[in-house]
Amino acid sequence: MDKKFRITEQPINIDACIKKVVRAEAGAVNTFIGTVREFTKGKRTLYLEYQAYTAMAEKKLSQIGDEINERWNNAETAIVHRVGHLDISDVAVVIAVSTPHRNDSFEASRYAIERIKEIVPIWKKEHWEDGTKWIGDQKENTSYEKDIPSEEDMNND
Amino acid sequence: MDKKFRITEQPINIDACIKKVVRAEAGAVNTFIGTVREFTKGKRTLYLEYQAYTAMAEKKLSQIGDEINERWNNAETAIVHRVGHLDISDVAVVIAVSTPHRNDSFEASRYAIERIKEIVPIWKKEHWEDGTKWIGDQKENTSYEKDIPSEEDMNND
Repeated sequence: MDKKFRITEQPINIDACIKKVVRAEAGAVNTFIGTVREFTKGKRTLYLEYQAYTAMAEKKLSQIGDEINERWNNAETAIVHRVGHLDISDVAVVIAVSTPHRNDSFEASRYAIERIKEIVPIWKKEHWEDGTKWIGDQKENTSYEKDIPSEEDMNND
Repeated sequence: MDKKFRITEQPINIDACIKKVVRAEAGAVNTFIGTVREFTKGKRTLYLEYQAYTAMAEKKLSQIGDEINERWNNAETAIVHRVGHLDISDVAVVIAVSTPHRNDSFEASRYAIERIKEIVPIWKKEHWEDGTKWIGDQKENTSYEKDIPSEEDMNND
């Protein structure tokens, strides 16, 4: 529960994620929360299903924390991503970044969500009114009609 | 308790503030949290004291919500600012902005904190190890050695 970079099947406790980065040296915490949106380009989502290779995904989330530390001074990052069945308005991901000054917290939090979509092996299956589709990569440029790539395929990239 | 733009003397419930803006049309919530930092340019803060003209401050916070709606499409904003005695790491302000897409939530949240510092009549009194000072305007460019301006002075601006 105390891990700063976590994949979970449970509803995310936003406060707990924020508390992991609040500290005396920080004056700012930027939090980005991704929620399940009902409509995308006029198409209605009924619910989503997220799937991840947990160990690999947590390692990549932790790597994003390291990248932030290389780029911004005195930052502390926590990221939790939920997997499994998510309904409309459910929280899929929470990023919290604390820094001494506010500008850095905004920039680093923004960086984190973009990097999650680039490098973390998490897929979402859209369940629309008229069908389903696995969406991946995370940048949403590639779709898998049938299934997501195997863990072995991922390691061969 | 349900007001979206609020001054409070109580500890801020971050989750409650976020819940006010989560909704089916939104896929993103950006939250900015300002906390009390212990050191500023090497000078140690022991605690802070915030003071506001509540009615005027809430009106200005609400105005910031309106400005966000003029600038970003389909945004929902909630802002709570605490006043009174705040210790190190206490949460002074929470801004939550939800939008359909993430870029807008980052931009609008950033806009909100800058505008709070520009237009909202809230002052902070720094209690350092070696003395005290009222800091204002909110951009921290002006200090009041003795006291903050009166409400009447504010209305004459």
